[in-house]
Amino acid sequence: MSTTVRSFRLDELATLLGAELRGDPACVVGGLATLDDAVSGQLSFFANPRYLDSLRNTQASAVLVAQEHADNAPCSALVMSNPYLGYATVSQYFERRGAFNAGIAHGVQIDPSAKVSESAQLCANVVVGAESVIGKDVYLGPNTVVGARCQIDEGVRINANVTLYDDIKVGAHSLIHSGAVIGADGFGFAPDNGKWVKISQLGGVSIGENVEVGAGTTIDRGALADTVIADGVKLDNQIQIAHNVIIGEDSAIAGCTAVAGSTKIGARCTVAGGAGITGHLDIADGTHITAMSLVTKSVTKAGAYSSGTGLMPHKQWKRSVVRFRQLDELAKRLKSLEEKLDRSKG
Amino acid sequence: MSTTVRSFRLDELATLLGAELRGDPACVVGGLATLDDAVSGQLSFFANPRYLDSLRNTQASAVLVAQEHADNAPCSALVMSNPYLGYATVSQYFERRGAFNAGIAHGVQIDPSAKVSESAQLCANVVVGAESVIGKDVYLGPNTVVGARCQIDEGVRINANVTLYDDIKVGAHSLIHSGAVIGADGFGFAPDNGKWVKISQLGGVSIGENVEVGAGTTIDRGALADTVIADGVKLDNQIQIAHNVIIGEDSAIAGCTAVAGSTKIGARCTVAGGAGITGHLDIADGTHITAMSLVTKSVTKAGAYSSGTGLMPHKQWKRSVVRFRQLDELAKRLKSLEEKLDRSKG
Amino acid sequence: MSTTVRSFRLDELATLLGAELRGDPACVVGGLATLDDAVSGQLSFFANPRYLDSLRNTQASAVLVAQEHADNAPCSALVMSNPYLGYATVSQYFERRGAFNAGIAHGVQIDPSAKVSESAQLCANVVVGAESVIGKDVYLGPNTVVGARCQIDEGVRINANVTLYDDIKVGAHSLIHSGAVIGADGFGFAPDNGKWVKISQLGGVSIGENVEVGAGTTIDRGALADTVIADGVKLDNQIQIAHNVIIGEDSAIAGCTAVAGSTKIGARCTVAGGAGITGHLDIADGTHITAMSLVTKSVTKAGAYSSGTGLMPHKQWKRSVVRFRQLDELAKRLKSLEEKLDRSKG
Repeated sequence: MSTTVRSFRLDELATLLGAELRGDPACVVGGLATLDDAVSGQLSFFANPRYLDSLRNTQASAVLVAQEHADNAPCSALVMSNPYLGYATVSQYFERRGAFNAGIAHGVQIDPSAKVSESAQLCANVVVGAESVIGKDVYLGPNTVVGARCQIDEGVRINANVTLYDDIKVGAHSLIHSGAVIGADGFGFAPDNGKWVKISQLGGVSIGENVEVGAGTTIDRGALADTVIADGVKLDNQIQIAHNVIIGEDSAIAGCTAVAGSTKIGARCTVAGGAGITGHLDIADGTHITAMSLVTKSVTKAGAYSSGTGLMPHKQWKRSVVRFRQLDELAKRLKSLEEKLDRSKG
Repeated sequence: MSTTVRSFRLDELATLLGAELRGDPACVVGGLATLDDAVSGQLSFFANPRYLDSLRNTQASAVLVAQEHADNAPCSALVMSNPYLGYATVSQYFERRGAFNAGIAHGVQIDPSAKVSESAQLCANVVVGAESVIGKDVYLGPNTVVGARCQIDEGVRINANVTLYDDIKVGAHSLIHSGAVIGADGFGFAPDNGKWVKISQLGGVSIGENVEVGAGTTIDRGALADTVIADGVKLDNQIQIAHNVIIGEDSAIAGCTAVAGSTKIGARCTVAGGAGITGHLDIADGTHITAMSLVTKSVTKAGAYSSGTGLMPHKQWKRSVVRFRQLDELAKRLKSLEEKLDRSKG
Repeated sequence: MSTTVRSFRLDELATLLGAELRGDPACVVGGLATLDDAVSGQLSFFANPRYLDSLRNTQASAVLVAQEHADNAPCSALVMSNPYLGYATVSQYFERRGAFNAGIAHGVQIDPSAKVSESAQLCANVVVGAESVIGKDVYLGPNTVVGARCQIDEGVRINANVTLYDDIKVGAHSLIHSGAVIGADGFGFAPDNGKWVKISQLGGVSIGENVEVGAGTTIDRGALADTVIADGVKLDNQIQIAHNVIIGEDSAIAGCTAVAGSTKIGARCTVAGGAGITGHLDIADGTHITAMSLVTKSVTKAGAYSSGTGLMPHKQWKRSVVRFRQLDELAKRLKSLEEKLDRSKG
């Protein structure tokens, strides 16, 4: 079960990355670290000009670096146009993941009507519901529950303690982290004389390929049609996606953001952490929302948008808050002064 | 285990809903959809005057509609005063839920001192602690853990991967979604020379009847007395309810809202998503808090309340943020100008 | 399995607390309650001068109280300099926790290469991965999953349905609540022509001693080095700690706060609920951040800091929001008026 961290010769890495090697081809690196933390035998990368001093003083045996900074490397260099992308690629080589062991662990319970690929790995106490289909090379972590009529495509990895309700599709090579809940009921009730009558949520959730869903993130099932997460979307931890939301391709959303019902977020949007987007909005492709902003109207033009105020010493802030309450009155008094002054000149 | 979606004749639905049927009594509908999405053989509903064109052009075989708009339906109509409520009712008929199979699944572990009704369904790997009582027709989803001395009343449904600590009461017909944690310790510590001494949380959690608790929502146990969620309360996903909070009947709270310790929220309040309510406050019955607002004082009068600022292009926002910091000074300068002008006139 | 609530003679409590007893040494108290709720046979405490009337009228058999207020107690008094700290201590005596039963419950699955202390209690369906070490007197609640190469030190309590990924260290006597996820991937991707390339997260998580982690809280593994939670840190529910964050000793963070990647929070900081701290910042020791504040710059000087605006009636708020958008223009008009007035005087 155990895994050892892999090692690479620099000429081997140069070939894998399509990088130009300056230095010792036989040098072996057995790990990745930051420029400051790296020790001999490790690889590092230089992607932010702010850290030029760190590059010059690194103890790494080799660095990924762009051509224009390669001369500053005090060690072997793998020269490439986008060293940050190179770092991402190499990080995957160094990942220390338990061996994939196809098969059904002890305590797994699979409904007789479900279909599970022989190459899938179902860990301890996994539960798979009726008519669900678990594809090739799928990994289901311990204590994960998959409901009925789910379709989990090839190469999907679902970590421990995830819950998929009924009628969930997860596209190939997507990754879902622990504690995520996919397909709980959307929050829908009809008011009836001060009471709430539940609206059964009849849709499912459709997650595309190469999606990542963070720990503790919740994506509700649709009221009638499906909630849709398109290919390549990246969702961080503790995000809440309400019923019938549609998130376009390759959009990325940081932790603790909430998106209310039926909102449509375009492709290649980025939403920072703790933001809120209210319901029934359209957010244009390529929009960027900054941290903890509240979006209450559709965004029709790509760009960066914000709400909120900046951090201040608490005492000073209390005074600004008082004035914020008076803001309309202050503006009117200003207007009135301007008119007085105009008249006095006239 | 599998379920088929049900079908209904329109005369049957008219009777169930108390609606007036205009059209073909023998027409059969086998599903619900929006006016735009519906196809022949489906039922839809018209509840928002904005969608009048959608009503006129729907392909649905029948619609739920109020009398004043019934003439616009191009199909059979079930005429009723509140078609949205009708939609809620019908949605429940069309819900596709796995058959209820009373009994104890494989891997379930029940403490010998617990009492479990014969009509309850305990799914795979459920754990039930000492002296707990599981009532009639209760459903406990796979991998759900119920602690000691819990009381789960008739008809409660607790989905997969829920955790109930010790001393939790859940009233009849309540619904708890996956990932919810009920009864973890409230956040209480006494400071002692720069260290924190834990205050053991000795209360429990009391959840009323017909309550819904969303996925990933956490409700902490009380410090001394219970945390209380009254009958009919609806909590969306990822809400945090701190120790000794009391939430009044039929209040509804949207996702990602947090309520701090000992705050009392009245009956029939609505709190939008991402709001925060600090501790030891009283919120009047019928109060409405808008999205991402922060409540730091008690609300004594029902009404709609808000905090925060509106979304702006980021560059413009940065200028407003700078001015917000100067707001008290700006207000004082305005006051000073007014006085000067008064004097110059005097 | 069942537990009874303990009882104490007052002379026994006086000795345990180092308190001075005024009243009946043989009086027995069998529970804790607030001054208002307490009945005969219970102990209460007086820590907030606001509740002096409650002290005078309490039905408790005894109270913890400071010397200067002891005369107001209508019952036996345990006099001590810090009654709130006394309350914390006594609350632990009255905690009603199931007996600790060392051993391995049914359904537990332990990798053969893991080491589990004989004095540890592993509840139903716990899973322990390869090479992990479970220390003395550790409690792992039902359905909790521990990954590979984890180290769980003496006396740690991890409640039900927790997920620890690989390479997690938890220091002695720490407490982790249900639904917490420790060690999921940090949110790291390199952009590549509109797509995201995953950066494998190669670090782990290092949690110190006497740490508390709330329900549903997520702490991501580091990108290269570990994410670090120092000794004595207290994290409430549904907090998100991103990769490579460092939180200093004895800092306490309330529910629903999010800390973005690589930010370093000092020692003895307090962060209220729903706050957000963006990435790569340094927060000075002893800083206090108020509820729902957004921190986007490093805090170099201890103190209380805030952002946001205060709660207002929604209609009035909408007017302030409009003016906030005009704030820079309003400030410029004010400046211009001041200059005009200066000139007109000159």
